[in-house]
Parts: sequence; structure tokens; C-alpha cells
Amino acid sequence: MTDPVEFDTVNPPDETARRAALTRHEQLTKPPGSLGRIEELGAWLAACQGQCPPNLLRRPRIVVFAGDHGVATRGVSAYPSEVTAQMVANFVAGGAAINVLADAAGATVRVVDMAVDADTSDEVAAAKVRRSSAPIDVEDALTEDEVDAALAAGKSIVDEEVDAGADLLVAGDMGIGNTTAAAVLVAALTGSEPVAVVGRGTGIDDTTWMRKTAAIRDALRRAKPVTADPVALLRTTAGADIAAMAGFLAQAAVRRTPVVLDGVVSGAAALVAEELAPGARSWWVAGHRSTEPAHALVLEQLDLEPLLDLKMRLGEGTGATASIPLLTMAVRILSDMATFAEAGITTTATATPTPTADIDADAT
Amino acid sequence: MTDPVEFDTVNPPDETARRAALTRHEQLTKPPGSLGRIEELGAWLAACQGQCPPNLLRRPRIVVFAGDHGVATRGVSAYPSEVTAQMVANFVAGGAAINVLADAAGATVRVVDMAVDADTSDEVAAAKVRRSSAPIDVEDALTEDEVDAALAAGKSIVDEEVDAGADLLVAGDMGIGNTTAAAVLVAALTGSEPVAVVGRGTGIDDTTWMRKTAAIRDALRRAKPVTADPVALLRTTAGADIAAMAGFLAQAAVRRTPVVLDGVVSGAAALVAEELAPGARSWWVAGHRSTEPAHALVLEQLDLEPLLDLKMRLGEGTGATASIPLLTMAVRILSDMATFAEAGITTTATATPTPTADIDADAT
Repeated sequence: MTDPVEFDTVNPPDETARRAALTRHEQLTKPPGSLGRIEELGAWLAACQGQCPPNLLRRPRIVVFAGDHGVATRGVSAYPSEVTAQMVANFVAGGAAINVLADAAGATVRVVDMAVDADTSDEVAAAKVRRSSAPIDVEDALTEDEVDAALAAGKSIVDEEVDAGADLLVAGDMGIGNTTAAAVLVAALTGSEPVAVVGRGTGIDDTTWMRKTAAIRDALRRAKPVTADPVALLRTTAGADIAAMAGFLAQAAVRRTPVVLDGVVSGAAALVAEELAPGARSWWVAGHRSTEPAHALVLEQLDLEPLLDLKMRLGEGTGATASIPLLTMAVRILSDMATFAEAGITTTATATPTPTADIDADAT
Repeated sequence: MTDPVEFDTVNPPDETARRAALTRHEQLTKPPGSLGRIEELGAWLAACQGQCPPNLLRRPRIVVFAGDHGVATRGVSAYPSEVTAQMVANFVAGGAAINVLADAAGATVRVVDMAVDADTSDEVAAAKVRRSSAPIDVEDALTEDEVDAALAAGKSIVDEEVDAGADLLVAGDMGIGNTTAAAVLVAALTGSEPVAVVGRGTGIDDTTWMRKTAAIRDALRRAKPVTADPVALLRTTAGADIAAMAGFLAQAAVRRTPVVLDGVVSGAAALVAEELAPGARSWWVAGHRSTEPAHALVLEQLDLEPLLDLKMRLGEGTGATASIPLLTMAVRILSDMATFAEAGITTTATATPTPTADIDADAT
């Protein structure tokens, strides 16, 4: 028996450091507020770190949670399940989009096989719970032991990464069928109908879309009785990969580590994580807005405004990672810009104007 | 007498390279189209370079055009004109927002004094046309010789930068009063009323806003007779800094060099540049959406969808530069990702589904 997983209390980011950042933004050589959300991001990162200016981001870390889903056998995806394991190998080899974007953003990638329906390397499979989560339209995705093991894995991965110096975390996803499970979670936790959450995933046709909607409908019926119990919900209609992501997102907040959320799978896990560790969302920013309709519901529920809106829908953590340079810039504005005093710049109000222009709008 | 400036014919980016990029995107290990606008950006950069995959961006270059505006004496800004020269010194010292963001984006900054109302260093002032452009609400900003000199300066700066290896250009702005001139250009070229283009600039109060609106109204009246003549329009109601930016943006297209547009001042110059060198806009992307209302009119007129929407309103090229990492990522996706064939990933359609889920929505 695996012990039930519990999360410590989440404390909010440091308000004193956030105010210090806002004050510093007023002193830097630019009109106050003129960098818009870059200023907000900088203040948030200062608050997360508890210091202003915040340190440069030294070790942004992307953890991709891979897992297969029995519901994929219903034909809900444009790709067969064997692609999950093939993509895991691609991540390890460094050839996937997340590898390329992470490298460009100064981040590194770790791949975790939670439930891939194939054998992967020992290193990748260290926390593996089972081969493929069960088809959620007809049975529970996981047993009680399995959901606890998956949550514990997500939690301990955060502990490992933060202890190793990670100062920014992203939970990425890979798994054929995982947007179906994510859609069920979002529908359950936002009180939405299947047609409001079903999306095109990897790019499905109309027939596949109908099968996916039907699978979501059936799984949602199974989710309804346990919607108020986040662990039971993960067990019933998520899967080991998404359960681990939920544990990861909750524990990141417990460990006072900022997170950039990705798209709909990361977002579905985030909705559950906020139930597991209330207040966790104050440690998260939304990296982007995905084209998946359920993602909009997630952003609304968590009251997060995404940084990017680039019609991305890949997953893997790519949308979150594409936004990391904005966070880097936000930190550097606070640490590297000159103040008005340092630059010797006038901050007094404009001298009295010499109004040749008549301000009466009716003047000729 | 300065000779009138002419621009060579603009040819569009290379369609063959663009198609090669689109084809390559279909072969990379991700669902086709799943990286959204990152894919479009990559195809555009391939087309600009005439090769796929495109080369990495080696020398993105930000040129900040500084100049004072006589209209600032009407009290249209929250800051006095002396701040322009002080900020030029700040750019040279590396303490401004654009310096910090450029460094974070792997770009470098050049500052050009076109019409600052103070003496600046010989290097910065090499192309200087005059001290402060004249107040556009009552007189022409520039003489015929001055507007030609400013356009020629913008053109030759592109030639110098491209010859030195610049592979991506941004035109930034600095000048107290420059959003007033920009608003007049936008109103003139989009047929808009003063109240539709007047914005808060550096952050002005209501009384200043009324003065700014009146100045725009008066200058717009002076612009109307010359709206169809881009050089005369620049002479009448722009200023040396914005005229140089227009020449810069036109010549960048002539020299087949991609440009990221910034906010309203860069956008106003772009509207004129498209008149000076028709087709130039195919060499531009919009880096961001500024909070200045006239900027929305620019984006609509040029049919450009901005990459970022972060409530920025600083100018200097900051909004454009904040988006450069997305361009870097777009290039690297095309050059660094594995193809399906290289990664040995299945691309055939899903195996026949085993529909336990009944796709009849009325089934129980």
C-alpha cells in the first residue's frame, strides 16, 4: 500500500519583495508602467524569490510527463498510441520541439515515463506506475495505490529539481489520448458540457471528433460522483501522467518555486493541483493560450491571463517554454536598468506649456 | 541642395523558400501546424533569407532614432524635452530598457541623433539634421533639404548595417513629443479623427491630453493637403527622427532584410515607408500591440497581427525586441528539430478504433 499523498500549506509569494519591485519600477529610466506586463512579471518573480531585484533565472527546468491512455483505443486521436514511446525516445535524443525551444530559452528538459505503453530506459521509467492508464470511458484510470504513487512521483520530482537548483518549473505533457482525459477533468471541475471542452487535439477529423466527444461524455458521467475529491477524480478519469503533473504543480507551490503553465493538459492538472494545495495558483503564470477550447475554461477558472497567444497546440510544455524569455527579460529589467538618479534624468513635471494650439475643440 | 531620395523596387520574400519551410514543418516531429504562429514566423524568415532552413539570427540590430519635437513646447508630454538628450546618454551608457531587452534577446543597439535639442557625441550625431524639428501645429517640421537628408540617413544606416551583417532590424524611437507627430501621420494616412489617434504617450493627465488632441488637430489640418505625397507629409508633420525611420524601414525591404516593427512611432513611420516603397510591409512583422490607440489603426492598415500583447507603451524598440526570442525559436525549430523519418516515428493514421463508447449522443 502506498500512503496517501499530502501537501503542506501553500504560502503566497512575498508581498514585501513584490512591493519593492513595484517601487523600483517607478525609479527605473522609463515612464512608470510603460513596460506593461513585463513589469508585473518582474514583480511576481521578485515575490516568488522573496528579493528585489530577483536573481537571474539560472536553471529553468521542463519536466515532460509521458503516459498512454486506454481511451486512445476508442480512436480519439490522429495518431496511434505507439507514438508516445517514439516521442519519449525523441525527447531523450533531443529532437523534439520542446528540446529546441528549451535550449533557445536557456532551459533544460527531463522526461518522465509515468505510464507509457512500452518499455523505456530505466532512467526515464524510474517513477513509472503502469503501462497505459485504463480507458476512462468504462473504468477507472488507476487504482488507489497507483494514483497515490503518481502523485508522490510528481511531488518528489519537484523536491529533486528544486534541491538541484531549479528556479522555474514547467510541466509538459506527452501522451496520445491525453487531451481527452484533460477535457474530462476540465469539464468536471468547471461544470461544462462535453461539447464545450472537446478540441481537435493533435488535429483530428470530424468522425474522430465525434468519437472523442462520446468518450468524454462517458468518462464525465463516471467523474461526476467524485468531482469534489481531487485524488478520486485523478484516479477515476485522469491517468498516471496527469496525476503526477497535478502533484508536481501543487508541490512547486509548496516549495515556493514559480511555474509557467502550458496548455490544456497542464491546465487540467493545475485545476486539480489548486484543489490539492489551495493557493498554489499564486505561484503560476500562464505561458500561453492554446487553441484547445477547454484551455480557455482553465484560464478563466484560475483567473490567469496568458503571456502568449500564438495558436499553439502541441503540448510538451512548448507554449510555456516559448514565454520563458519574457520572464528572463522581466528579471533583467529589474536587475540591469539604470534608475533616474543613476542616469541623471529629469523627473519633474513638464515646464509650463506655451499653448499656441487652442484647446477649445471648436476653435477654428 | 540634397538630392531627393529614391528607393529601389521592393521584391517580395522568396516564395520557394517559404514553401520549402512549410513542407519541412509537415515533416518535423509534431502534428502539422501545432506550433501555430511559430511555424508561420519560421516560414517567413526562410522566405526573407531565401533558404530553408534559415540561418540562425547572428546580428539582430536595434537602431534607436532620437529627436526632439517643437510641439513638445505645447505641453503634450508628461516629460520635458531635455529628457530626450538625457535618454540618449542613457542608451549610450547601456542603462535603458532597450539596452537590457536587446542584450537578453541577443541583439545590439545603435543610437542615432537625428534632431535632439542638445549636443550629443560626434558618433551619435553623425547624421543629425537639426536641433529639434519645428512645432508641427504651426509650421513645417523640416525644410525640403532636411527631409531629404533625414530619409537619406535612414537609408544609408540600413546599408551600413546590412553590409556589416545585420540579419534582422528594428527601428526604435526616443523623443519627447514623438507620439504626437506619430498620431498626426496615422490620422492622415488612415483618415481618422484626432480623438481616435490621441493616446496617453508616456502617461499624461487629462489636461495634457486635451492639449495633445488640439495640437494633433492643428497639425492634421496642415497635413491634409499633402497626405498623398509621403515625403511632403514627413516634411510637414513628422520630424527628422520619424523621417529617418521611414527611410530605414523602406530601405530594409529593398535590402531584403526582415524587420520587427515596434509601437506607434515605428508604425507611423511604417505607414509612410509603405508609400515610399510599396510592398515593403511583406518584409515586416509586428512585434507587439502597443496601448496607444493609433497603433491599432496602423496594424489594421498594414494587415499585421502582432506577436505580443503585453500592454507595453515605452517605445525605444522595446516591444519589437521583446518578441525577438520568438523569431529565434522559429528559426531553430526549422534547423534543429528531428523529422519523423529521422526519429522513426509512426505517421500512419490511427489503427481502427474499438468503440466501446457509442458515438450516438443520445445513447444511455
